Amino acid sequence: MKKADLLLTHATVLCMDESYTLYPDGAVAVGGDSLLAVGPTQELTAAFAARQVFDCGGKVVMPGLINAHTHVPMTLLRGLADDRRLDVWLLGYMMPVEREFVSPEFCRVGTLIACAEMIRSGVTCFADMYYFEDAVAEATVEAGMRALCSQTVMKFPTPDAASYEDSLALAREFIQHWKGHALILPSVAPHAPYTCTADILKACSALAVEFDVPLHIHLSETLQEVEEWRREYDMPVVPWVKKQSLFEAKVLAAHCVHVDGGEIHTLHNAGVGIAHNPSSNLKLASGFAPVVQMLEEGLHVGIGTDGPASNNDLDMFEELRLATFIAKAVSGNPTSLPARQTLAMATRLGAQALHLGHLTGSLEPGKRADLAIVDLETLHALPAFSRDPDGVYSRLVYAAKSTDVTDVMVNGRWLMRDRALLTIDVPPLLLSSAEYARHIDTFLTAREGSLLSRLVAIGGAEQEESYEVQIKVQLEDAETVRARLESGEFQVLRRAHYLEYDTYFSFGDPAEGRLRHREDEFIDETGSVFNVRYRLTMTGPAAERAYANSVFLSRSRFIAPASHSLRFYREYFKPERETAISKDRMRWQIRFQGEEFFVNLDRLLAPSLESTFLEIKARTWSRTDAEEKAEAIGELVRVLGLDHAPRMVQDYTDLVAT
Amino acid sequence: MKKADLLLTHATVLCMDESYTLYPDGAVAVGGDSLLAVGPTQELTAAFAARQVFDCGGKVVMPGLINAHTHVPMTLLRGLADDRRLDVWLLGYMMPVEREFVSPEFCRVGTLIACAEMIRSGVTCFADMYYFEDAVAEATVEAGMRALCSQTVMKFPTPDAASYEDSLALAREFIQHWKGHALILPSVAPHAPYTCTADILKACSALAVEFDVPLHIHLSETLQEVEEWRREYDMPVVPWVKKQSLFEAKVLAAHCVHVDGGEIHTLHNAGVGIAHNPSSNLKLASGFAPVVQMLEEGLHVGIGTDGPASNNDLDMFEELRLATFIAKAVSGNPTSLPARQTLAMATRLGAQALHLGHLTGSLEPGKRADLAIVDLETLHALPAFSRDPDGVYSRLVYAAKSTDVTDVMVNGRWLMRDRALLTIDVPPLLLSSAEYARHIDTFLTAREGSLLSRLVAIGGAEQEESYEVQIKVQLEDAETVRARLESGEFQVLRRAHYLEYDTYFSFGDPAEGRLRHREDEFIDETGSVFNVRYRLTMTGPAAERAYANSVFLSRSRFIAPASHSLRFYREYFKPERETAISKDRMRWQIRFQGEEFFVNLDRLLAPSLESTFLEIKARTWSRTDAEEKAEAIGELVRVLGLDHAPRMVQDYTDLVAT
Repeated sequence: MKKADLLLTHATVLCMDESYTLYPDGAVAVGGDSLLAVGPTQELTAAFAARQVFDCGGKVVMPGLINAHTHVPMTLLRGLADDRRLDVWLLGYMMPVEREFVSPEFCRVGTLIACAEMIRSGVTCFADMYYFEDAVAEATVEAGMRALCSQTVMKFPTPDAASYEDSLALAREFIQHWKGHALILPSVAPHAPYTCTADILKACSALAVEFDVPLHIHLSETLQEVEEWRREYDMPVVPWVKKQSLFEAKVLAAHCVHVDGGEIHTLHNAGVGIAHNPSSNLKLASGFAPVVQMLEEGLHVGIGTDGPASNNDLDMFEELRLATFIAKAVSGNPTSLPARQTLAMATRLGAQALHLGHLTGSLEPGKRADLAIVDLETLHALPAFSRDPDGVYSRLVYAAKSTDVTDVMVNGRWLMRDRALLTIDVPPLLLSSAEYARHIDTFLTAREGSLLSRLVAIGGAEQEESYEVQIKVQLEDAETVRARLESGEFQVLRRAHYLEYDTYFSFGDPAEGRLRHREDEFIDETGSVFNVRYRLTMTGPAAERAYANSVFLSRSRFIAPASHSLRFYREYFKPERETAISKDRMRWQIRFQGEEFFVNLDRLLAPSLESTFLEIKARTWSRTDAEEKAEAIGELVRVLGLDHAPRMVQDYTDLVAT
Repeated sequence: MKKADLLLTHATVLCMDESYTLYPDGAVAVGGDSLLAVGPTQELTAAFAARQVFDCGGKVVMPGLINAHTHVPMTLLRGLADDRRLDVWLLGYMMPVEREFVSPEFCRVGTLIACAEMIRSGVTCFADMYYFEDAVAEATVEAGMRALCSQTVMKFPTPDAASYEDSLALAREFIQHWKGHALILPSVAPHAPYTCTADILKACSALAVEFDVPLHIHLSETLQEVEEWRREYDMPVVPWVKKQSLFEAKVLAAHCVHVDGGEIHTLHNAGVGIAHNPSSNLKLASGFAPVVQMLEEGLHVGIGTDGPASNNDLDMFEELRLATFIAKAVSGNPTSLPARQTLAMATRLGAQALHLGHLTGSLEPGKRADLAIVDLETLHALPAFSRDPDGVYSRLVYAAKSTDVTDVMVNGRWLMRDRALLTIDVPPLLLSSAEYARHIDTFLTAREGSLLSRLVAIGGAEQEESYEVQIKVQLEDAETVRARLESGEFQVLRRAHYLEYDTYFSFGDPAEGRLRHREDEFIDETGSVFNVRYRLTMTGPAAERAYANSVFLSRSRFIAPASHSLRFYREYFKPERETAISKDRMRWQIRFQGEEFFVNLDRLLAPSLESTFLEIKARTWSRTDAEEKAEAIGELVRVLGLDHAPRMVQDYTDLVAT
């Protein structure tokens, strides 16, 4: 007789393998971290001498569920700001709170709470994407779960990195540290096309290829994203990211709500795994992903909860039910995505989407012992019609609840027995969570008057590049400079001429930053106004550094169309001080030493100074790029013959007596 | 000090009244079956001397949830046939099984299971629509719940009535018996416009008005229903039912998935309550109800689970979550249907939709003490951000589970304490449910070969009128009869001339009924074929009764377009015997004595008998109508001068030697 550590007997065993093998009175033999055999109870009890035998009494034994996309530490932000617009939710609440509170300890506590919640609902493996992913991975190992852990990279400053270069370095260290771990598969997560640059995507893909680990990304989540891509690049998101070499890596793409037939085909050819997130897509009104078409194409589509701040829980049974319901309603066909296939998405296909299909996702000899035991003999999931072999899948998906899960094992180790968690002590975590909530409440209450939150509340704002390099020079002879710019020695990409009327709102606390209302009257060759543009710009206080001839600024900057009147904004924001500046601006967008710059010739109209200034400016998401541009500006000033720099002002408002 | 029977203290009390009063440390005073007061704990403990005080320890106390539409006995059919087309599900499984198994005892067991499940998930009141509603009401009272119980009326024979006249009589008795009961509000339920006739709707409305009780109906559930109405009556469903006087009653309309702006307006003016059923509408792929528009119009829209055979559970927490998710996704706006308003739908608005708003749905002094206590201090519903006063609604709707309900009270009586059911003994009910499931499995397995199920499986079939009156007379002088019909003394509504090729399939067991494949070649004045129609008709065995000169038949009859070849059907159905009959048929649709009849002059081509038959036929859903038509046929035969009735055959197949 063969030896086993554990024999689970007398269960309804759902293997969830390709052929959906089902043993009505089945058994599972476990040895070490792996499955030795799955089959009829009679056969396995005859074949194996087990150290322990556990009679399941007719309960269901199935592969543990795979949560294919989430942000586990966000259990601490659950319910922070519901029923808000996506930009208000993200820019007004999530990102400011994350910048202020997210730390390794925050991630540890949040991850352990998430693991406890997921184990209770039968999840054995998840795909995470967050900051301080090292802390997430450590807490996951402490809880005993399996996970694809992805260190986030994006162009904005993040809680764990001031620049994306720092994030990339973090991701590299993280992957090096965790590669080969029994429970953790490390990976890199460029957050999304719209929060990254082409360079970031390329660098992340190269990193994933270098270490042969997956790359995890949000893709085509909202219609807005897709429309922006069509406008900007004349193509949808999927072919664009393919052009950035993304698919050279093994990709897990979350959402894919707005993808067309061609994109689905591309994703399939590239072996991309998909994480479908029904609750999140509905709650944030992102739309309905073409799940049926993706499955028909042969894609590995898993099911995810997304983060608990947009769900608001980590209950995979709710997601299963929702996934099949939505597929039916959207296709208008109640036979779409039957229960059995839905359960396959949350098990085998999910594991394949995470590029972990060789280890988990089904009960097959040789795979890791990752399983869940579910009690279906409940008031709400009975009766059982035994006539229909698919009935058990139907009872699991349409009637069972996460609270019907009684036992969970990962990698051959019990994490929950008879509904008692064995690896996580919950009460201290909830105390810690309450403590964080108190601090966050205080922070947000104090911030209620903050400029950004109020700007966001009236229509949202887009975050702009965080690094700015600039120089301002008072000219004695503007005409010479102008002639130089038009001489053909620079590559001019665009020209504009406009009258710019700026009104600056400033407030008691300079840390609040300030707001500019800007009205641009564009002027054609005949001197007539042919277009007017109204914009709001909010800038945070700048961290400033003089650099050669230029000033190097690092600050938050948000821009939004000003759809209301100046009077409206004055009443709404109630500024302490108001400063008006108007100027006649000739603008050249030029390329110099391979870099792009804005060169402005500004004649100040109010306050009227009878002088013209040259301003050279460049913005970027990259710190190293900013440093290179600062060097180039110094050289450009020299080339323009303004070496001796007669006067330098940082800001026109400095010229106004206050 | 005032006296109270019970004081619930130290709860987060959500009153769910019009102004959403919330007491963070609140109390509720109960006296007898009613609420005496709701307010801050400090105030109520000072004002009331209570026989019992129960400290809720910070849990939520809220009005019990209202399940606005369901079919409770169907807990016994849960999971019977999932992932099927609606017609396959309904005609192939639900209706045949119901006809065979539904009895008062079935309804008692099914209702008690449903009540147990609903009490556990915080429901205190529901709107039911089923057969043997007397048994449903009795079981509901036994469980201690409040309900709007509606006796179903439809044109088809039902488990509790052979004709709709019998159903109406049952409904009248039911209402008379239960009117004035403390827990049960009786009502009549014409099932749906497409399962009723205009006369049935009028009669039901009159009955509801006579007793001043609500009328409960399925309305505009599928696109198919609406399209059929537009085709048949050139108007949508709502104005049509209004024309049938439906809205003279106090109506609860379930679904209303496909209603336009005008219809929403009509529903509002008529004071119709709406039951929105998110799970059912998705699972059966019915579509997305315009909930946000209905609420904006001011309609009372409640939330229902629908029957457990199309859900598959009675978990109102799942419905709440789904209702808000779908509203957001369909409107493309994540601020649609915020959590607080969603909870109002499942409480106050739901009670109003059931026309029970004066008794229940909110915690206000004078209303009945119907309430639920929910523990939100759970792993999956924490943290609590106290900054946001709407946070508690958000935690309830987006994160809480039905299993977080700990205590439920209806009409001042505890039905559940600390998760223990006090009025229902579950284990014997589950034994009984398993017994029913075994019998149903056996029935369905035996029936797998049944004609109807196999007809339904290849494309569905429509049930036709169940009463048929007919006479057949062998004519000596067909030309005289024909001239009589064209003489102008009858009102001829339509004429047709065709060659009819019938192939009858019959089977071993005559109880199976038989199937006819029919091919009609329509012939124009010149004698050429201008159109061909292929149809399948399945008829069950007939209960026959000779009546004056005519034969009165009562049998099930299903009709479907035959989109495959005769060869296909022959191979698919494998009949034991096949009989071919072909005839040349001249058909007149005439009105006689106010009734419509088909009058056919049939010249048999095969078997060739060299004789012509006169056939007079009428079909109806109504038994009394059938009897009147039988009388009229006798008269019509006399008028046509065929008094002496030379020969009467019941069926042309009788003429074929078998």
